[in-house]
Amino acid sequence: MRGFKLVIEYDGTDFVGWQSQLNGRAVQDEILKALRKILNEEVTLVGAGRTDSGVHARGQVAGIRTMSAITPGKLHAALNGLLPEDVRIISVEEVPASFHARFDATQRRYSYKILLSPGALDRRTSWQLKYTLDVELMRRAATQISGKHDFSAFCKREAEVENHMCTVMLSRWDVTNERLVYHIAADRFIHGMVRALVGTMVDIGRGYTPIEKLEEIIASRDRSAAGTAAPARGLCLEEVLY
Amino acid sequence: MRGFKLVIEYDGTDFVGWQSQLNGRAVQDEILKALRKILNEEVTLVGAGRTDSGVHARGQVAGIRTMSAITPGKLHAALNGLLPEDVRIISVEEVPASFHARFDATQRRYSYKILLSPGALDRRTSWQLKYTLDVELMRRAATQISGKHDFSAFCKREAEVENHMCTVMLSRWDVTNERLVYHIAADRFIHGMVRALVGTMVDIGRGYTPIEKLEEIIASRDRSAAGTAAPARGLCLEEVLY
Repeated sequence: MRGFKLVIEYDGTDFVGWQSQLNGRAVQDEILKALRKILNEEVTLVGAGRTDSGVHARGQVAGIRTMSAITPGKLHAALNGLLPEDVRIISVEEVPASFHARFDATQRRYSYKILLSPGALDRRTSWQLKYTLDVELMRRAATQISGKHDFSAFCKREAEVENHMCTVMLSRWDVTNERLVYHIAADRFIHGMVRALVGTMVDIGRGYTPIEKLEEIIASRDRSAAGTAAPARGLCLEEVLY
Repeated sequence: MRGFKLVIEYDGTDFVGWQSQLNGRAVQDEILKALRKILNEEVTLVGAGRTDSGVHARGQVAGIRTMSAITPGKLHAALNGLLPEDVRIISVEEVPASFHARFDATQRRYSYKILLSPGALDRRTSWQLKYTLDVELMRRAATQISGKHDFSAFCKREAEVENHMCTVMLSRWDVTNERLVYHIAADRFIHGMVRALVGTMVDIGRGYTPIEKLEEIIASRDRSAAGTAAPARGLCLEEVLY
């Protein structure tokens, strides 16, 4: 058996997310369909992270195992030839068959884009807000999010994960003109975490939640204490490290 | 009569272009429809440039004249409330009623984006190429395009314009990693000019047309001497100066 590591970019707008669902178009299904055609065998495709409906990726990683003798270059070209326009394979690399895209990942990085002015060209990839935001307060909040915490307060309630501890090694707002981009990297993320963090920081930035309450919100481990999740369209899985 | 100057951003993907057509969705029609609802009167809307089907704008300018007493701020908010997501009004400013968005413009600036690597997120706003391009040759070509020339060789043949003289004051390729962006500013543009120029420069960059032939192509004033037009999706009207 041989292993291949795929790096994948997709526009999540017209997808129900990465993972196969009973209804709707999943990124995973599109890639599996193409792989079956190319390799003429049943393959499994393991993604590093399950992005939700509407969430984008510039650096999703997935692993496959195959009996085929195909070269990485040929697989790359064949996949991009068959895949729809909103999914593109950025690279294909041969890896040991033991490679596991999800369990072997040591770090994942996401970005979240907010626009404070109206934009037609970025509408699929940003959250457009009309509030005036206090960026300094949001920066202080981002600093507090850094480090190892129990992030239960920022986890979708239906998710049944026992471990809510995540170590955040990057948590920063980059601001240029009327565009705010939040960058966050962690060893692991729990379901809905980035969108809940961004929603909470926006509440702080617009003066709805005092910055002093953030510590309390984290300590509460209660999803209802944190802010509403920011919309999916602003979120992008940028990179997965191994 | 009062005059208003609108600065408009749009994603041209799902439009037949700026100008009203017998069939299909035109940007102009969407804005006119909204204006009539807000102002309760028949208005005319003059755009600075007629972008083709699929071409985008970050800074299209249009002028209207109205009898209404509405404030610029209210008109701005009302338009963005009624317009579809792929058209956004960036600003509304009161100007003399004599303002003419097309005839008063002194300079227009466009950008054209090329990606040399596969991209799902930028697919609506870029031309994705698999060629290896000699960027240095393309830069030399861009320099030759600067200045005052008769651009007949880069004008769509069906266009019946008598004057093909344009003064190009900016013509430059910006290259970062696998992304090439061409910037061009001129006092005026003739129909199809930027896309024909980009197509010709790509032919030079991929070694299909020798750079030495460019002068000859310009001098020929013959559209068939120049390269195929680059696709609409990469082109964006960035700014109009008055």
